[in-house]
Amino acid sequence: MLKVFSNIHFTPPPIWLMRQAGRYLPEYRALRKQAGGFLNLCYTPEFATEVTLQPIRRFDFDAAILFSDILVLPNALGQKVWFAEGEGPRLDPITNTQALSILNQSATGDIFSKVYEAITRIRSALAPEKALIGFCGAPWTVATYMVAGRGSPDQAAARSWAYNDPAGFQKLIDIITSTTIEHLSGQIKAGVNLVQLFDSWAGSLPEPEFNRWVVEPTIRIVTTIKNRHPEVPIIGFPRAAGVSAVHYCRQTKVDAVGCDTSMPLGFMSGELANTGVVLQGNLDPLLLVAGGNQMRQRIDEILEAMQGKRFIFNLGHGIVPQTPPEHVAELVAHVRSHTSNEA
Amino acid sequence: MLKVFSNIHFTPPPIWLMRQAGRYLPEYRALRKQAGGFLNLCYTPEFATEVTLQPIRRFDFDAAILFSDILVLPNALGQKVWFAEGEGPRLDPITNTQALSILNQSATGDIFSKVYEAITRIRSALAPEKALIGFCGAPWTVATYMVAGRGSPDQAAARSWAYNDPAGFQKLIDIITSTTIEHLSGQIKAGVNLVQLFDSWAGSLPEPEFNRWVVEPTIRIVTTIKNRHPEVPIIGFPRAAGVSAVHYCRQTKVDAVGCDTSMPLGFMSGELANTGVVLQGNLDPLLLVAGGNQMRQRIDEILEAMQGKRFIFNLGHGIVPQTPPEHVAELVAHVRSHTSNEA
Repeated sequence: MLKVFSNIHFTPPPIWLMRQAGRYLPEYRALRKQAGGFLNLCYTPEFATEVTLQPIRRFDFDAAILFSDILVLPNALGQKVWFAEGEGPRLDPITNTQALSILNQSATGDIFSKVYEAITRIRSALAPEKALIGFCGAPWTVATYMVAGRGSPDQAAARSWAYNDPAGFQKLIDIITSTTIEHLSGQIKAGVNLVQLFDSWAGSLPEPEFNRWVVEPTIRIVTTIKNRHPEVPIIGFPRAAGVSAVHYCRQTKVDAVGCDTSMPLGFMSGELANTGVVLQGNLDPLLLVAGGNQMRQRIDEILEAMQGKRFIFNLGHGIVPQTPPEHVAELVAHVRSHTSNEA
Repeated sequence: MLKVFSNIHFTPPPIWLMRQAGRYLPEYRALRKQAGGFLNLCYTPEFATEVTLQPIRRFDFDAAILFSDILVLPNALGQKVWFAEGEGPRLDPITNTQALSILNQSATGDIFSKVYEAITRIRSALAPEKALIGFCGAPWTVATYMVAGRGSPDQAAARSWAYNDPAGFQKLIDIITSTTIEHLSGQIKAGVNLVQLFDSWAGSLPEPEFNRWVVEPTIRIVTTIKNRHPEVPIIGFPRAAGVSAVHYCRQTKVDAVGCDTSMPLGFMSGELANTGVVLQGNLDPLLLVAGGNQMRQRIDEILEAMQGKRFIFNLGHGIVPQTPPEHVAELVAHVRSHTSNEA
């Protein structure tokens, strides 16, 4: 996995899948029940270690990704976060500058220390050739949840705040950005080998706001992390950024970019690859649910388009709960067989 | 408005706004209350005429758009559709090929005839220099609602059906496509001067599915409508299509393309304009809510980027209910003043 970030073409490509630890696995569901809730899994080092390793044991992925959530950060800052069963995350929303006072950057250690303990355990349990990926939400996406108090289809609450009071919203983004830098540094010191920044809602912004709320904070994060830890690759995932992904890669200088399912392969292997980034993606998670010939054909198309590029095989979005685990095994086998046939 | 489709640069650009008739207007809310529900507004020619004309009276837009909804089509085909107050549309979902039998293409006249009566009334009430735009959902987007029974953030139900049973899903798309062609033809015969195809969920599909479920049905619609009514321009709105909007324009041969808020102006005036289409867009509706200097500056940026292009000023998505009507008046005035200053 780590080799993909050198200049050597890597055949077969390394493979891991977003949300590879999750509800589609019976062993995950059993442990979540035992833990009594999602956040307890994240905050109990034994549990976080176990669920992170479960998919590696089953599928021999090239990388483990720290089992976590983008809302661990606002929770560590003091915002109340809970997961309503079957309903997604809920937070006490922060809707104006005054409300920012509840966020306490010096109190994050309580929660973050548990995460770092999990990382140290995972890294020592993981085979040396397997990469461990650190996990963080990107500031814009984290802000959309902090402001709306939940996931929202159009991120209207954060977008409106940003228009009505850009200076106040900038303060929120700055708090998240500096906390993200500290959290990624902490994860790296604890043992992760690379990190991914999840910007799930990057696609909802017009160009000037994309630059201010997505690109600028990411530049700050990448620059600072590169300064402190020049050896650690950073994967950015500006989901649904479309055309703007090229600008994102050039400006932020991320080492790799996650490509969502809607990104055309010709664009990925052309304009996007020309920015110099490693590409990652982008099988549709619903095609993984469907499986069969269709899935294998699409895998072949992706691999053929990415031939000769520095490429990490992944989905274009996270695994969904109804995914049959045997399709995941088939995906891994097919990616590995196809490419070695061609090599 | 109609002149924009000739080769003459049109200064100032024509302006209309998606969902310009709607809940942000007190006169609309009053009429909706009187009508006793959203679908009654669509299906009662007097009401549909009145709400279509309300924003023209107030803001002197260059075009009226038929007040309708993309779910009028499945409803006309026999699918049950209702609007739960404050919750969005609900339908009895169609989830497999057997369930397609409830759809009856020969029974659409009951509902469509009311729509055509409204169009004839609107056209005769509207000043001759104002264009009247016909309204239809595009097959993929309409299918996502028909299959899920409601709006859904990821359109998973339709995407899964399309993967698991492409031949069955093709039948649904074919029914919607041929009904759309009939409905657009009917609207044109009743008096609309151009039409817009709303494909709100075009951005959720990988490239091969985008081609099959978005591009192919749109080609069929555009080709047939152009054959029957060569003088009627067609605006396509493949929201969030990103990079793929170029391919969409080249393949479908729509006359104009609606650009969503996230589309960069340089991409619109460059690659997208080079396909030969008229551009339409793309102010953020939430910036219209915010108003003020920020809004005026963004309008100026859009107009400067579109200078010399065949361009229709619009939003990148529909007006939201909390929009102050005075901001809309200011938007119209600013678009008209800015461009005539430069001319």
